[in-house]
Order: sequence, then C-alpha cells, then structure tokens
Amino acid sequence: MKRIILKELFNNHQSYVGKEINIKGWVRSVRKSKAFSFIVVSDGSCQDLLQIIADENIDNYDALSSMLTGTCVSLNGLIVESKGKGQSIEMQANGGEVIGAVDDSYPLQKKGTSLEHLREIAHLRSRTNLFGAVFRVRHELAQATHQFFSNRGFFYLNSPIITNVDGEGAGEMFNVSTVSKAGFKKDDKGEIDFSNDYFGKETSLCVTGQLEAECHALGLGAVYTFGPTFRSENSNTKRHLAEFWMIEPEIAFADLDDVANLAADYIKHLIDHALKNCASELKFIHSIPFSDVDKNYVDTLKSVVDSEFKKITYTEAIDILNASNEKFEFPTNWGDELQTEHEKYLTDKHFLSPVIVTDYPKDFKAFYMKQNDDGKTVRAMDVLVPGIGELIGGSQREESLEKLESRMKELNMDLENYWWYLELRKFGSAPHGGFGLGFERAIMYITGMSNIRDVIAFPRTPGNCDF
Amino acid sequence: MKRIILKELFNNHQSYVGKEINIKGWVRSVRKSKAFSFIVVSDGSCQDLLQIIADENIDNYDALSSMLTGTCVSLNGLIVESKGKGQSIEMQANGGEVIGAVDDSYPLQKKGTSLEHLREIAHLRSRTNLFGAVFRVRHELAQATHQFFSNRGFFYLNSPIITNVDGEGAGEMFNVSTVSKAGFKKDDKGEIDFSNDYFGKETSLCVTGQLEAECHALGLGAVYTFGPTFRSENSNTKRHLAEFWMIEPEIAFADLDDVANLAADYIKHLIDHALKNCASELKFIHSIPFSDVDKNYVDTLKSVVDSEFKKITYTEAIDILNASNEKFEFPTNWGDELQTEHEKYLTDKHFLSPVIVTDYPKDFKAFYMKQNDDGKTVRAMDVLVPGIGELIGGSQREESLEKLESRMKELNMDLENYWWYLELRKFGSAPHGGFGLGFERAIMYITGMSNIRDVIAFPRTPGNCDF
Repeated sequence: MKRIILKELFNNHQSYVGKEINIKGWVRSVRKSKAFSFIVVSDGSCQDLLQIIADENIDNYDALSSMLTGTCVSLNGLIVESKGKGQSIEMQANGGEVIGAVDDSYPLQKKGTSLEHLREIAHLRSRTNLFGAVFRVRHELAQATHQFFSNRGFFYLNSPIITNVDGEGAGEMFNVSTVSKAGFKKDDKGEIDFSNDYFGKETSLCVTGQLEAECHALGLGAVYTFGPTFRSENSNTKRHLAEFWMIEPEIAFADLDDVANLAADYIKHLIDHALKNCASELKFIHSIPFSDVDKNYVDTLKSVVDSEFKKITYTEAIDILNASNEKFEFPTNWGDELQTEHEKYLTDKHFLSPVIVTDYPKDFKAFYMKQNDDGKTVRAMDVLVPGIGELIGGSQREESLEKLESRMKELNMDLENYWWYLELRKFGSAPHGGFGLGFERAIMYITGMSNIRDVIAFPRTPGNCDF
Repeated sequence: MKRIILKELFNNHQSYVGKEINIKGWVRSVRKSKAFSFIVVSDGSCQDLLQIIADENIDNYDALSSMLTGTCVSLNGLIVESKGKGQSIEMQANGGEVIGAVDDSYPLQKKGTSLEHLREIAHLRSRTNLFGAVFRVRHELAQATHQFFSNRGFFYLNSPIITNVDGEGAGEMFNVSTVSKAGFKKDDKGEIDFSNDYFGKETSLCVTGQLEAECHALGLGAVYTFGPTFRSENSNTKRHLAEFWMIEPEIAFADLDDVANLAADYIKHLIDHALKNCASELKFIHSIPFSDVDKNYVDTLKSVVDSEFKKITYTEAIDILNASNEKFEFPTNWGDELQTEHEKYLTDKHFLSPVIVTDYPKDFKAFYMKQNDDGKTVRAMDVLVPGIGELIGGSQREESLEKLESRMKELNMDLENYWWYLELRKFGSAPHGGFGLGFERAIMYITGMSNIRDVIAFPRTPGNCDF
C-alpha cells in the first residue's frame, strides 16, 4: 500500500476520505481502552498529527496498542472524516507493524520537557512539536531568501569559509590549521612560522563573505551569500552563536538608500512568506508561553509587511533618546554607541515598528564603509526590529582607493593582505553597497523564540560543540 | 533615466526598441574611428554584451571614446535594431560618463588570458565572459537544488561546520581552535589538554553533515544539507579542493533503491534546469577549447536527461572489467577498489552513460553503511558520470544498534563520542539512507570545465588561500 506523507494527506484531506493508505512515522501517544486504542502519529512533514483508531480485532493489536511514545511505526488504514474537535480526518487502522521500538529511557516522554534539557538532546529535539515547527519555518525562510534574491537578479555566491583576512577588522577569529596539534614552528624572532601549515600562511574561519561578495558584485552586478560565519568572542548570551548563518547581498551601482530599501523589502518578504507557508507552525510556536511573544504576534508581523520602515540618522536617534524621559543605563551623547536599551526604546516605544538608523560615527564602524563629507560619520545603516534589536547591518562601501587606504592605515591594518580588495577600487570602481542579515536572528524575530540556540539545529557556543 | 539591466534588456529586446534607457557596466572594448566609436559593455547579468555606437558629436565624446578595457561606465542612448550579425539590438549613445577608470596595469586586457593566470586574479575573473558564464551556471544549479528538494518535501538543514566527530572516519580534518597559536597545554601523559580551548574539547571542520542529517531525517522525515565541507588531504589534483560545497539529502523509510532513484532524478533535474536556464552560458563555455568537451556537449547532456541510469553491483562491475579487453594499470580482483580508469571504462566505454554501482566491499566504505547478509559487502552506491567519475556517493545506513556498534568497535572508533548517533538506533529507529553530491563536480560535469578550481569563486587548495 502506498505511503502517504502527512503533509500531503492533510493538505488534500478530502481526496483521501474513503481511501486505504499507509502512513509511517513516530508515535506521540497511545491511549488504550478495552475494545480499541487511540494512537497519535507524527511524521515530521507538517504540524498536524494523525489520530488513528485501532480496534482490538485488527492484526498485531497487542504490539500496536502497547507502543511507547517515540516508537517508529507503519500503519495501514481507512481515512475517514473525524468526529473529534479540530481534526479534519482520522484513520481507522486495519493493521501495521512496529518499525523501531523504544524503551523507557526515551527522553521525549509525553510530558513537557524544558528547552534547556532539549538542547542537551539536540539529536532528538526535531521530533517535538515545537522544534519540528521551528525547523520547518527555518526551511521556508531559507527558500524565501533564495527566491527573493534570485528573482531580483542576484547571483548566489559561495564566499570562502577559510580565509587569511579579517573582513570586519575585529580580530575575533578561529584559527584553522593542520599542524597546530604538533605545535607551530617559530622563526628567529619568536613569531609563528606558518610556512609548513596547510595553506602556507595563517588562516582563520571567515567572519563575513562581504569582501569577496564585493569582488563578484563588481563583475556580475549583484550577488548574495548565504553561508556560515564565525565569531570566537566569548559571548554566552541568548543572542550570540560562535557559528551562525548569514545572508549578505552586495550590489554594484547602489547607494545607501538602495541598500536600505532592499533590506526592508527582504524582511517583509521573509515575514510574508512565513505567514503564507507556515501558518500552523507560527500559530503553534506563538501559543507557547516561553517568550514575550503572544498569540496575536501574527498580527504584529502582518503590520510590519504593510508598514514603511522608519529611516533616521544616528544623530536624529541620539536626539530622540535625549528628548525622551527614559532613564538609560548607558550614556547617549553624540559619539556613544547605541546599546540594546537604546535600540529597544526606538523600536518598541518610540516608533513601534522596525527602524533603519543611518550615518553612524565612523569610530565604531568597519574600515570599508563610505566616508561622509563631514569627516565624522560613515554611510552605515542598522536595521533594528522590535524585541530583537539589530537584525541587519549594512553600508555603502568606500569606492575611493585613496580614502580607503588612508582609513586602513589609520587603523594600522596590513594593506598588503588586502591587495586584491584595494584593486577593486583601482580597476573600474563603482559605487556599491550591501548588508548582512543574521539568519538565526531573523528566525527568532519571526518565530518569537527567545534563545538563538533554539532556532539552529546544533548550536555552537563557548564550551558547547556536541553532536 | 532608468537603468536597465542587460539581462532584462536582451530578454525583452523588442519592447525596448525605440526607447531611451540608461545602462551601467564595464567596458569590454572600444573601437575608435573618425566620426564615431564602437563601445562594447557587459554588466555581468547575462552572457550578452551590448554594442553601443557613440557619434563624435555627443556630450563627453572624448572621454567615452578613449575608455580602456575594464572602465566602469554609465551610458544613455536609444535602443535600435542591430544591423550587425548575431546581435538583436544595439544602442545609439547620446551621452554618458566614466564611473571608474582603469590604467594600463588592468590585467584583463582584450586578448585571452590563461586559466592559470586568471586563478591568480580570482577577485577580477568574474568579469570575463567565461567566468561570468560559470558563476551564473553555478547560481542556477544552486537554485535548482533548493527547488528540487523543497518541492519533494525535504527540509533544508544547516548541519554544523565546527564539529567534534569525524563523520567519515577518515581522519582528514582541519583543527579549529582559539588557543593553538599560544600553544596547547599538555596533560601528565603528554597528551593535548583541550579543556581551555573555546569549546573545551578538540574540534575540527566537518567532512560531512550526514550524521546530523540522520538526526533530522528521523524527526522531520526527509532533509538535505547544502553547505561547505572540508578535507585536509594533501591532494593537488584537478578534482580536489580543501573546501568544497556538498549537498546531502537524507530520507527516513528509504532503502538503497530509493536513494539511487533520488540521485538519478536529481542529476537529471540539474541538467534539465541548466539547459533551460543557462543555454547561452553553456553554449559559450562548451565552445571554448580547454577540455574534452566539444560544442555538441549539450546533446550529450540532453541524452542523459532522457536516459535510465544503469544500475550494477560492484561484483558485476568487476566482472565487466575482467571480461573487457582493456589493459588497466590497477588490478581488478574482487576486493580491489575501483580506480578512475575503471570508472571511466564503465561510463565512457562500456555503458556510454552514467552508472550507479552498488554493494561495495565493506572494507573500503564508511562505518555507517548497512551491512549485507553476505558479511562482505555494504549497501553503498557510487554514481559515476562520463568524464568525471564519481559524482555522488551514498548508502543505506545501518539501522541496527548492535551491528553498527560492532562495526565501529572493529574499526577502533571511540563510541562515546558518537553516543547521540548511536541513540538514533535505540529510539524509534527506521531504515534510512542518503547521498552526498560534490557541488563543484556537478558544475564541472555540466559545464565541461576541466579544473575544479575554475568552478568555485575562491578555491582553497594546498598552499592556496588568497582572497
């Protein structure tokens, strides 16, 4: 008998009523009474679970009616309209078999398990209603990303993971080596000699694909990356991972306004796609009481799709903060960094919507950003969203070789290492810009999940690299 | 005036005839004569180049007519039907400006440059006709991959990059560390003590995402990865990279036949998508005399889409090789590995088509493969394609805890490190399997490019980690 995936079954349930089919999946619960049992099965393809009624007279009833939660099972039966509340259809089993048993030590029992505990059994957590939902939303947001950029003529770039440059100039990089375990050689001055390492030089895991994306944007016009990036900072927060996925579009012939508009359109597209393709998943996740998000969060998301993102300069943001009656922990003088509390005030209290802040002081922004004529600020932008804070950081890039070199020298960077990046400004340079979206933060924003470790399959954080 | 991307212009050229538009891009050539100049421009969006006729009376003629190859330019003009051969339309310029100049040192002059030299200027090579074509094909194959799996109900999994397990048991891994440069600590026995490293244990770059994909397949039903993988082997060949992208689907409730059929369908889908979406690119690449591929290669690819992939066992393959009159360098006794020459004989001479070889001797296959009852072979498969050899490797996985543990002990593996992988066989186990496709090898196969370094943006090989 043909196996039907539950997503297909529930999406087209009318056409299956009256038909005999096979389903395969994992048992969520078995409730046994005298003459029959109720078995609930998930196969992970959708949020819906199938309820199966097994009469005591069917083949193999003893084994089927005594299955424990987590058992892998194959069941044959007739699909009928359901008499139960909230269920469209159910199955009247006429037989089946246990594919894979479990014992009492199976950690996902019917009763609720804490998110903390589920992180320790990340190899099994995709079997729960909650994590099944999260990973299906993640899947849809990835598809939405490829569709959005591809439809707009951007080419997907697999920027390199192992690199010899620090694309953000922040120094928080993992070393990659084949000789480190045997011990690095030292030269006469006591410096590490990397010449016998795999690549013959010092190499690290990338913090961004932007510099390489600029190369391809100035050849193909518009590109985007979607790949893993790494930060070795010792941050044990709900918002940081050592390994996370980033989407970085880069466009030639674009200024900061173009970049900001692209960012807003992209966020709206992500939300719109999730609302259309993951309604059951979002409803389920938003109904669980583990975050600030409530069951009406879908309405908040819908309003973002229809809203215009506010655009203000950093200077205007500082003015708004100083004109407010809020008591902030951190100072808000011109030149101070915007802290999470400031960003939250802007999005959650002042504007009640996402906000794009532009033209930050150059001192706390990266070397590659286009310098404004005021000598103090750069053409940077951060997109701040309610509840999360910074979701996107971007900028127009400095396209003048002279200005870029002078800024890099100011920052004591080793220009030789960046020879190819500088050459982009020497050979047919063009105004260009782009941004980076932390994929996990976008998933947090749309699902309302409050810990970043719960929106990536196998999180990497200080001291944690299991699975 | 509105900028029109060349892809849009050429795809809908009839609707632009008689209209004034702006285009932006990079100069491929300028041919200056007395009263006018011919300027050829690419913007990277498509294979087509736009020819622009600039009359000496237009604004800024001196600057525009003396532009060097590589100059970034903005041009306004009228689109007219072309009188030239092979061109559908051209532009009659009425003005424009140089956006970014170049000097004589620009390395991409009009005359041909060797592929070797272009690898040394990988930051610029996307500006050539050839590499523009390759990277657009790469883009389309990535889109085709996501569409194929998503349409079949597979969920995209971002499997972890930094890992503490060796998923292939082959030991060819890069170490990842934040303390290695300062020097690892040693314990009393002289062994490295990783406790003060970032993750508190030894960590490496993944060689596969398969083991984690198995976790999610046994929760969500069917998943696929598409991410970077790494091998630190010292292979300086045309077919090996230290960093390459792999697609790894994994399905629950599947046997090796299901996996083999999925692999064949996927390869056909990739070819079909490329033929439909990259006709100009493939025509251009196949016309360049740098490989065994000729300009009729499109016909070869088309025939693969319509063909049934041959399926033979390893044992049958050995019989075919021994029955042939070929002189092979390597032996072909039962138990010997199939070498490239053997694979090429099967695909290029015996079958003249892709071939799926199954049921290899267990001794040269990975620990996780399902053991056949003969005690000698495992349910492995390799998909071999003409010209390339192995494109896909896959298997049904061993779902029996007892058999898997016993094989891992035989191979002296540290079972404790794989506790979570083993638990998948303890809790609701199911028959399952999957495969890995090396993305760059698939691009080589379809484009006919003969060196793997020329189908990835910034290749990483022994001694090479620039850009």
